[in-house]
Amino acid sequence: MSSPVEIPLSTLIHIDRGLSIPVYLQIAKQMINAIQRGVLRPGARLPGSRQLAQGLKVHRKTVLAALTELDAQGWVATLPNRGTFVHSVQKLHQESLELVDTFDLSVYPVQAGFLFKKSMLLDRPVALTQTELEFTDGLPDVRLAPMERLSKNYAGIMRRGNSRVHLGYAQVEGNAYFREYLAGYLNDTRGLHISTENVLTTRGIQMGLYLTSMLLLERGDRVIVGHLSYYVANMIFQQAGAQISAVPVDEQGISLEAVRDLCKKTSIRMLYITPHHHYPTTVTLSAQRRMQLLELSREYGFIILEDDFDYDYHYQSSPVLPLASADRSGMVVYIGSFCKALAPGLRTGYVVAPADLILELAKLRRIVDRQGDMVMEQALAEMIKEGDFQRHLKKAQKVYQERRDVLCNRLEKDFSNYLTFDIPPGGLAVWTQWRKDINLMKLSRNCLKKRLHLPQTLLFQTEDLSAIRLGFGNLNENEMNQALDIMLEALASD
Amino acid sequence: MSSPVEIPLSTLIHIDRGLSIPVYLQIAKQMINAIQRGVLRPGARLPGSRQLAQGLKVHRKTVLAALTELDAQGWVATLPNRGTFVHSVQKLHQESLELVDTFDLSVYPVQAGFLFKKSMLLDRPVALTQTELEFTDGLPDVRLAPMERLSKNYAGIMRRGNSRVHLGYAQVEGNAYFREYLAGYLNDTRGLHISTENVLTTRGIQMGLYLTSMLLLERGDRVIVGHLSYYVANMIFQQAGAQISAVPVDEQGISLEAVRDLCKKTSIRMLYITPHHHYPTTVTLSAQRRMQLLELSREYGFIILEDDFDYDYHYQSSPVLPLASADRSGMVVYIGSFCKALAPGLRTGYVVAPADLILELAKLRRIVDRQGDMVMEQALAEMIKEGDFQRHLKKAQKVYQERRDVLCNRLEKDFSNYLTFDIPPGGLAVWTQWRKDINLMKLSRNCLKKRLHLPQTLLFQTEDLSAIRLGFGNLNENEMNQALDIMLEALASD
Repeated sequence: MSSPVEIPLSTLIHIDRGLSIPVYLQIAKQMINAIQRGVLRPGARLPGSRQLAQGLKVHRKTVLAALTELDAQGWVATLPNRGTFVHSVQKLHQESLELVDTFDLSVYPVQAGFLFKKSMLLDRPVALTQTELEFTDGLPDVRLAPMERLSKNYAGIMRRGNSRVHLGYAQVEGNAYFREYLAGYLNDTRGLHISTENVLTTRGIQMGLYLTSMLLLERGDRVIVGHLSYYVANMIFQQAGAQISAVPVDEQGISLEAVRDLCKKTSIRMLYITPHHHYPTTVTLSAQRRMQLLELSREYGFIILEDDFDYDYHYQSSPVLPLASADRSGMVVYIGSFCKALAPGLRTGYVVAPADLILELAKLRRIVDRQGDMVMEQALAEMIKEGDFQRHLKKAQKVYQERRDVLCNRLEKDFSNYLTFDIPPGGLAVWTQWRKDINLMKLSRNCLKKRLHLPQTLLFQTEDLSAIRLGFGNLNENEMNQALDIMLEALASD
Repeated sequence: MSSPVEIPLSTLIHIDRGLSIPVYLQIAKQMINAIQRGVLRPGARLPGSRQLAQGLKVHRKTVLAALTELDAQGWVATLPNRGTFVHSVQKLHQESLELVDTFDLSVYPVQAGFLFKKSMLLDRPVALTQTELEFTDGLPDVRLAPMERLSKNYAGIMRRGNSRVHLGYAQVEGNAYFREYLAGYLNDTRGLHISTENVLTTRGIQMGLYLTSMLLLERGDRVIVGHLSYYVANMIFQQAGAQISAVPVDEQGISLEAVRDLCKKTSIRMLYITPHHHYPTTVTLSAQRRMQLLELSREYGFIILEDDFDYDYHYQSSPVLPLASADRSGMVVYIGSFCKALAPGLRTGYVVAPADLILELAKLRRIVDRQGDMVMEQALAEMIKEGDFQRHLKKAQKVYQERRDVLCNRLEKDFSNYLTFDIPPGGLAVWTQWRKDINLMKLSRNCLKKRLHLPQTLLFQTEDLSAIRLGFGNLNENEMNQALDIMLEALASD
């Protein structure tokens, strides 16, 4: 019979009575760890339970519980009258025997042990703001969102009956009640003529862009975007294998002459557009161009991917109806969200399209995240039904118009040496065009020193362009004035 | 000067004073609709405002507001002393002039106007249960989940300060506080040795499978799975372009002999495994095989994708530690979720991997849905921190053990003519093997007639197999007995 192994008990096993794990389990786990690391070799005989109990300063029952656990999990075998043995494992961890000679619970691989592609195309958003003050590219002020009401709805739905429907697996396309109210709401406010079957709920516009691109684009397909356009959308199209062709954007939106020229030259699969308002320049696609664009898409057979991220706030007249409202040929895929109306963090958006496409998008969505947040969707449906959502929009629109005016008045008064701009008819941002000799990156850095974050994603500086997309939604009057004071200082100190 | 067009006002424009949209906007929208449909042709002169007001039975001011709206949106032009004209639009909707001759608000394309691939591989889950009683493949009972506490946390976080952090854009990798508590919790309970940087939060295990597959698999790669395995995972691997090789599964888990044979013959990129417990047969991978599998993965360089969906409930001994806890070479990607512990609808899960891989997965996640639910993640972190989550698991484990016993006792007592089974050591399902002459599809149909849903995804009937994966988690004693009574009747009536 082999003699028991020497276990350096005091260094091998640490018992912490402050932990929520029972002591016997702490012992068992650390012994497993020792087996896995090769410190306890396969076939080795463990010391007797009395000896272990003594060494570990625990009751013998605790040791026996630990050994039973090890046995139940198949790590050791207890043979009658012979003792407890570590199971034989063929070819067990030869290298780890050499590698690990100190007891270190924090061993976790620093790198993957296999190769994988690192994307040069995709990036993660830059580090989050650490400053109190920041300009965004047009985010809303989440402090204005009716979170009392929404959270009350949400908590109520979570608690009350019918929980299987809202907390279990549900329809991939989204909460049916929400889709119905959303369809009605979009019909009422955006001139659509849709019903539930035309709506797929998504995790914000992001997922709408992702799903449609992955389904509709193939390697080598060509997508037309404006020059400039939303860079994240460009990333997604390219990730899907498509090539991008950029067409000029003027004060009426993207140039349809350029689109037509491209269509004549090559096959176009898709055109991506934010007609209301163009990102980042904030212009609205004119009514004429809207009709012409629909006509072109029919003529040349390209899909119009209409990203209506900015529909909610319009200050001069009511919003221009989406292209989707005039689409009679099924050429438009329409995506929107509650990100600007309420808060980006809610991750609630939608794709509107003919039913056959919705069905196919749902198949894809099913493997991506299975379904959306049924509780949140139910809560939003209730807010639409009760009119809370509509009342919030009305109130928020007034606040944002005031904030736009605060920004534009200050720009007019204090920044006319540096930049020009048009007052935007809607949305949450002003497109400011800067003097070419001002280094915007440097401006951004100088602002950060004074605790104002002016993210690089807002800056557009090339040979023939020098612009910043300045969001005004997230800053109240006081904050806006502080932010602009800092920017002015940063410019003066330059 | 052209004479005004005849507008069939009463059929063209419906005013509904019950709607929340102002009347002037209703008029404007319906006129836009008429222009878009070609009912009002480009260049046509509109009737005067007095005439319109009379025809529509509204105040003239309302008509003027509508016309101003139309003008602002660019649909009409008002020329001094000449009247209001529909803008000229080149080549406007020639076909829609013929198509639409009645006023129909519900016109929306039935089908997409372009071609797209319809996937034969992907499917949507079958229609949702309409019956009160259903068997699942092992879902928890959401009625047991501590929703009072969770909803209170959730609502509190949503309302209270710091809203920008939880309701705005946040870190792609997930809520940092949650990742920290989750890492600690996984270290304590699953023998991992990870920190925050090793955790990416996901929308359930689904998104974990999706992201890892899309990042790590390329067309032609080979993935080993058990025969049988989780069919949704198979779908994802194939969607990513991989080919699947299935190896036998016995009472100790997947056959490593078969894995080794495959590795000798061909290059293997990944092995997918649910070691605890194998899906659908519920066996636990033995300790010996766990070590050997890690060894094989190092030897042949394949990734182990460890789907630990079923870790939470274990009735005999404490759960077997995951493969990831013994991985010193960075070969294991570990995914899990709160789906079984709390509720599938929460869509909260995680990927655990070396930091370089987490970073790359985050880049991909950024274009899929941007980020998870920061509020939910914060709420769950608080539950872990306060121990509410751990207390729930402890309570639920007792309930589920009782339910397992109710099911197994009934199967033993009343179904021994039809099937055999082993009592599962953990998890929420029993693997029942049926007499080959029983048609399981027919059984399922007969059950449905009696208001018991026995979904097809639970049935495994091939030439050499006749089995049902019977979940017991979602049914209390009374419901379980009802369900089994129905099943028994259905069998007897056959």
